[in-house]
Amino acid sequence: VADRPVVIVANRGPVSFREQNGELVASRGAGGLVTGLASLRGEGATWIAAAVSDGDRLAAVRGAIDAEGFRVRTLAIEPSRYSMAYDVVSNATLWFVHHHLFELARRPRFDRAWIDAWHAYRAVNDAFADAVADEAPDDAVVLVQDYHLTLLAPRLRDNRPDLRLVHFSHTPFAAPDLLRVLPAEPLTELLDGMAAHDACGFHSARWAAAFTDSCREMLGRLPTTFVAPLAPDADDLRASASSDACDAALTELDEALGERRVIVRVDRIELSKNLLRGFHAYDDLLERHPEHRGRVVFVAFCYPSREGLAEYLAYRQEVEWLVRSLNEKWGTADWTPILYDASDDYPRSVAALRRYDVLLVNPLRDGLNLVAMEGAIVNERRGLVILSTEAGAFDELEGAVRAVNPFDVVATSDALADALATPNDARSAESAELRRRAEARSPQAWLDDQMRAAD
Amino acid sequence: VADRPVVIVANRGPVSFREQNGELVASRGAGGLVTGLASLRGEGATWIAAAVSDGDRLAAVRGAIDAEGFRVRTLAIEPSRYSMAYDVVSNATLWFVHHHLFELARRPRFDRAWIDAWHAYRAVNDAFADAVADEAPDDAVVLVQDYHLTLLAPRLRDNRPDLRLVHFSHTPFAAPDLLRVLPAEPLTELLDGMAAHDACGFHSARWAAAFTDSCREMLGRLPTTFVAPLAPDADDLRASASSDACDAALTELDEALGERRVIVRVDRIELSKNLLRGFHAYDDLLERHPEHRGRVVFVAFCYPSREGLAEYLAYRQEVEWLVRSLNEKWGTADWTPILYDASDDYPRSVAALRRYDVLLVNPLRDGLNLVAMEGAIVNERRGLVILSTEAGAFDELEGAVRAVNPFDVVATSDALADALATPNDARSAESAELRRRAEARSPQAWLDDQMRAAD
Repeated sequence: VADRPVVIVANRGPVSFREQNGELVASRGAGGLVTGLASLRGEGATWIAAAVSDGDRLAAVRGAIDAEGFRVRTLAIEPSRYSMAYDVVSNATLWFVHHHLFELARRPRFDRAWIDAWHAYRAVNDAFADAVADEAPDDAVVLVQDYHLTLLAPRLRDNRPDLRLVHFSHTPFAAPDLLRVLPAEPLTELLDGMAAHDACGFHSARWAAAFTDSCREMLGRLPTTFVAPLAPDADDLRASASSDACDAALTELDEALGERRVIVRVDRIELSKNLLRGFHAYDDLLERHPEHRGRVVFVAFCYPSREGLAEYLAYRQEVEWLVRSLNEKWGTADWTPILYDASDDYPRSVAALRRYDVLLVNPLRDGLNLVAMEGAIVNERRGLVILSTEAGAFDELEGAVRAVNPFDVVATSDALADALATPNDARSAESAELRRRAEARSPQAWLDDQMRAAD
Repeated sequence: VADRPVVIVANRGPVSFREQNGELVASRGAGGLVTGLASLRGEGATWIAAAVSDGDRLAAVRGAIDAEGFRVRTLAIEPSRYSMAYDVVSNATLWFVHHHLFELARRPRFDRAWIDAWHAYRAVNDAFADAVADEAPDDAVVLVQDYHLTLLAPRLRDNRPDLRLVHFSHTPFAAPDLLRVLPAEPLTELLDGMAAHDACGFHSARWAAAFTDSCREMLGRLPTTFVAPLAPDADDLRASASSDACDAALTELDEALGERRVIVRVDRIELSKNLLRGFHAYDDLLERHPEHRGRVVFVAFCYPSREGLAEYLAYRQEVEWLVRSLNEKWGTADWTPILYDASDDYPRSVAALRRYDVLLVNPLRDGLNLVAMEGAIVNERRGLVILSTEAGAFDELEGAVRAVNPFDVVATSDALADALATPNDARSAESAELRRRAEARSPQAWLDDQMRAAD
């Protein structure tokens, strides 16, 4: 299929449009997906995405626009419909289901408003399918991305039987017992919709197995799946790390930290990221290991996410309250134990990754987690990584990271203490091996796997 | 093994002791387990249980005592140790894990206090194992009951290799992905402890499969399992239903209800029982079906449970707030839409089961659920049963009940409406079939299955 034209379908586009003096100006978007698909730039690929900004809506009216090496087609969806699909179904239901985040005694509660939201989700998926049918060149390979867009394939099968359809999930996939919380018809529609692709890809064999198990149990048939973990673009990342902005951020960080040992985490403020237990583990470390008091700093760069959902606002407040209370409990006149910052600053985040002695990546459940690999690639301190067994990236990094059960605060605290106590020789070997593993794959390999799966 | 002596091991005993004028007086305990094992009465079986009351503690000092047809041996465990094992590990951890009740972003949080509680749980299990080793006749079959007691078998294998050991779980068993929240060592100890029995029994093949999957994945070996759903004692239940106390309660209920149609639920106030969504579904029913306003009453007998755990107190308050708000929303001068009572009154509960037109049994997840079967046996109104697919009892009653996804409030509301609209002929056939299924098994059959599994 190497010669077939490619269509990418994703909620977010590779660029964001804005109007300037009557012209549409495109600026490059951020995020792992754009980086992952960067090698398709300039190859004539079409990228279909929802219109998010006002400029995107203007672009939608004009049809496909060439920008940043893609033929970009934005879809203007009626805002209340988009919100029901995106906020209620995608983020407050499917994200929660796949990450096992619901407190089941109370949520989810599938009421009539939710059924309406499901209809909106289906309508958004239909609009995407129709845009693909309009835009896709003959015999194209269509790469559909993530949980926002799961229902395109059956409609495209009818309208464009010439296309090859691949779906890729960037999240975990729910265990069958937890997927079954979804109402019967939407559940069947979701699994049918995904299974109708030529192949469905996941970052980890565990997520692929959960999807297969659900299809076997609930559809009575088996889908075609493949496993293709995404990876950071090491060159791109090294360029960021050696930028002036990153150097300046590192200098500033060094001034604040001095000679202290540094634990780092860089995460969205997201329920699945397990920020609370990370700080509880640090509290336990300081309690049980007085030798670290005053000599270590936990640098936590946690940037806000999905603040339109009440759960995320409440979680952020709880996280920030805990940080304040631990800084009050342990802090001294010349030592703030946790350096917490919720402003999203990419060069400074990369600077923190260059500087850590220990990187804590302890999600409850995570499709992949690129931060663990990014840290390994840019770190300059023979840093060690503590990684949750429940992150997809654990599959590839096992043996080169310190494995931790994310629910086990004592084990996490022990892992922090052990990592801080590891002698330099051992640190060198371990961080070199980790870097080797983190660089083993590339975004191109991930893309190639999707193209191969289309066959 | 029919001729082998039997030893029952359970957290609760068949009797409760109290001191009266210097004598120990035994009164019969309640609960499904005592009923289930009633046929062993007078057969010389030994029953080993924790001392709960002060009288039980006195009994513990005296050793085994003959009471209610059993040789009863109570174990006096140091109260703070017992509380750590029973409250922290058994009820606030293992119960939550097996019922998928945790809100994982916040709980569980395995800290040092929890590790201490796990040591207490192990110590309690060891005390039980030692009591079994002391009390069990040669070559006895030991029937170990439920999640409070999972670690006896390895110790007993060493000390009493002559015994046959059977474990029976009255709860569901967690999906492997959720069982893995437990810290690594306790998790291995738990699975090893259970798998060391000659066989492990469950109410449903689904729970047995989850246990087997976890053993395969985490121990690398397969346990011996069997499926043996418990059932009500139909004769015993009919005797209760025809008692004077039950007749009086029914008369009183009839006076309150008049000719109205009646939806009934009888449950502990327990997070897994899904009380909130049941009331939300009723709200939706009244909203969408004005014809039922004033003509139906939801009789909810919900009795308090585990009030020592903050989660249960909060849940009870939330349930009662919802009931009040719905009674205010819909109630009129001569109609209270929900008749809610939190006092635990057995004859009145059985009277409600005699009287229902529709019985709502919608747990999130339930080992078995006897109420669905008990209702079918004593109901006098051609009543229909709405049953959660996530209850173990669904395996046996499927096809004779209205199946419902417990998270789907709209589907539950639809099921209530359909059941209320079902004509009498169809109701007769359906409730007769349900009664036949509910009476298909007996407590004796359940006991026989355990004895057979010991072979």
